[in-house]
Amino acid sequence: MRSDVTHFNCEIENGIATVSLDRPDRKNPLTFDSYAELRDWFRDLHYADDVKAVVFAPNGGNFSSGGDVHDIIGPLTKMNMKELLTFTRMTGDLVKAMVNCGKPIIAAVDGICAGAGAIIAMASDLRIATPEAKTAFLFNRVGLAGCDMGACAILPRIIGQGRAAELLYLGRSMSAEEGQAWGYFNKVVAADELMESARALARRIADGPNFANMMTKTMLAQEWCMSIEQAIEAEAQAQAICMQGQDFHRAYHAFVAKEKPVFEGD
Amino acid sequence: MRSDVTHFNCEIENGIATVSLDRPDRKNPLTFDSYAELRDWFRDLHYADDVKAVVFAPNGGNFSSGGDVHDIIGPLTKMNMKELLTFTRMTGDLVKAMVNCGKPIIAAVDGICAGAGAIIAMASDLRIATPEAKTAFLFNRVGLAGCDMGACAILPRIIGQGRAAELLYLGRSMSAEEGQAWGYFNKVVAADELMESARALARRIADGPNFANMMTKTMLAQEWCMSIEQAIEAEAQAQAICMQGQDFHRAYHAFVAKEKPVFEGD
Amino acid sequence: MRSDVTHFNCEIENGIATVSLDRPDRKNPLTFDSYAELRDWFRDLHYADDVKAVVFAPNGGNFSSGGDVHDIIGPLTKMNMKELLTFTRMTGDLVKAMVNCGKPIIAAVDGICAGAGAIIAMASDLRIATPEAKTAFLFNRVGLAGCDMGACAILPRIIGQGRAAELLYLGRSMSAEEGQAWGYFNKVVAADELMESARALARRIADGPNFANMMTKTMLAQEWCMSIEQAIEAEAQAQAICMQGQDFHRAYHAFVAKEKPVFEGD
Repeated sequence: MRSDVTHFNCEIENGIATVSLDRPDRKNPLTFDSYAELRDWFRDLHYADDVKAVVFAPNGGNFSSGGDVHDIIGPLTKMNMKELLTFTRMTGDLVKAMVNCGKPIIAAVDGICAGAGAIIAMASDLRIATPEAKTAFLFNRVGLAGCDMGACAILPRIIGQGRAAELLYLGRSMSAEEGQAWGYFNKVVAADELMESARALARRIADGPNFANMMTKTMLAQEWCMSIEQAIEAEAQAQAICMQGQDFHRAYHAFVAKEKPVFEGD
Repeated sequence: MRSDVTHFNCEIENGIATVSLDRPDRKNPLTFDSYAELRDWFRDLHYADDVKAVVFAPNGGNFSSGGDVHDIIGPLTKMNMKELLTFTRMTGDLVKAMVNCGKPIIAAVDGICAGAGAIIAMASDLRIATPEAKTAFLFNRVGLAGCDMGACAILPRIIGQGRAAELLYLGRSMSAEEGQAWGYFNKVVAADELMESARALARRIADGPNFANMMTKTMLAQEWCMSIEQAIEAEAQAQAICMQGQDFHRAYHAFVAKEKPVFEGD
Repeated sequence: MRSDVTHFNCEIENGIATVSLDRPDRKNPLTFDSYAELRDWFRDLHYADDVKAVVFAPNGGNFSSGGDVHDIIGPLTKMNMKELLTFTRMTGDLVKAMVNCGKPIIAAVDGICAGAGAIIAMASDLRIATPEAKTAFLFNRVGLAGCDMGACAILPRIIGQGRAAELLYLGRSMSAEEGQAWGYFNKVVAADELMESARALARRIADGPNFANMMTKTMLAQEWCMSIEQAIEAEAQAQAICMQGQDFHRAYHAFVAKEKPVFEGD
């Protein structure tokens, strides 16, 4: 998987990619360029075998302030409908690419995490925060609707319909403590432990059965609006595929030999 | 928007409608008449521009005791299937009208909130309670099923499937403390602060971008059973519409001028 | 309803069936035989009128260790795709049979509750645990995906998408305390009170309106992926059916007579 990107930071080491936005002096706003390049990078990730997990990291004490006021919001106010739809579809395509990339994504959230930044964390699979994390789906405060990049569908599934409605109608900041109590953050750790904690979690996942993890990620999205009966049949098929995988055999033989299984992702 | 209603109380002031049921001596039960008039009022609200948010208030220390035993349950036991279905569709139509009215509804819950009363609070967007609020989906205790007016679909999305199942199978009362911990209540405040707190929240929402809030409300319902991909495309379209709105432009210009935006709802 | 089963334990008394797996020395693993017999038993339960509620109990201090490593996992590693799919469909059919049996199921969870054991608890309607309960959706740790028997669809609806993702990607154990805070367990009680507590809950449900309870169970599953509008119409029909039931009339007459209603399930 390539790490030669221009509009965000990317490092790949031992199967774990760490990405972050790159303008810490302005709390890492998104731009047209970084949106597009992130979308393309996550789309490519779908086909990569050498990255097993992704950490979406903060930079300089903040995660992201969202779409840049000068670089994005200003130009948007001058666009016609065709151009606007092209933009909102591009941002939505970033979420689709994250959901479909096949690798678990861990958002490591510190400081400001607002607007499209909050969406990136929401669209990740797991979330770790520092006590200083301030998450705001603030679309409402810039005159827009809460339905941005899938928020009205995804946020209620994570924290419940009533709490999601509150955040989306008010645009208010959710504290790290609230986020943990509500199931948005899987864990809250001190700022100086954040990256270590996120990388340890990524390591644990990357050392697991990666083909099976990809299938877990696929089905968590795929079963979103299936009936219970459809979901159970879909899982019968997906798990049967995994049972013909070598990692399942490795786990069985390791168990019989009283050893720890070493997974290889096939 | 008209406030000349007969079977419930309604006041409209500065863009905020406050409605409540009107028989405090009997803990505000619903009747055939109040069901029908509430349904019609919320349907009309869809077309009104002068109401931006609704507070559904208690009266005399109680929210509502639900369908009246003498005025509703008695007559129901004598109806044929056609008449029964007409009734259950009318009650369901009240929930549909609330969901489709386009204005955020804040339930201010005190005291008894039972049966159809609990449903009205559940079908609201946000909920504030007093410590004395007792919420009971008590259909089971009158020999009926928990599937009333959308409860089996909506309640699990607010508090989770396991907790919803418990409330619906037992008909037991949920305390304010449980409701807050479970995400049913957004906030719990002392009884003498309830209306002030609900009105302040309604004020904050009414002063926001009301066209965008309508779109948030629409999409929170519309994406209920869409796939993730469908939801993201639906939001790309809905948000592009909002980006051509004047409130988005107002927010941008206010930001550049370092002022607080004044939204006008277009 | 028959209790003459071979591969698990079953007792039926006063309308409450208590079932448990039967190899306490090995923490009650599932086998091909017990899977199939449980599936058949829950399918038959759909047609039985003499069982009103089910307690799925632990045995010897543990709920279940899931699919047996020697009896199930070993043979699975030697199967072709057709045989694997036959197996995963059989396990899925057990969940379908539990969901469709029409009687509320209470899982009483103590000690180890892992893999397919965790699924059985998840597929139950209500869950009570002891502080010693350790629940692990550990498929990932044996090289498999988290999408087993409906977990990627059902678990997120109970505890939220973010917490479900964590449990499914890591295969880690969820404590009783976490399970209660997250809405997985309805209650945590001391081990020596577990069965008494589960039976009291089953008793309370069995003494309720059983036809209406069946309808509640049906609709909680049926409305899983309906739109809000579809769900409300479905409930209007389902509740109208219940309103022609005798239990509704009994409740009304008992209320008027200031007596406690005695439900008979019709």
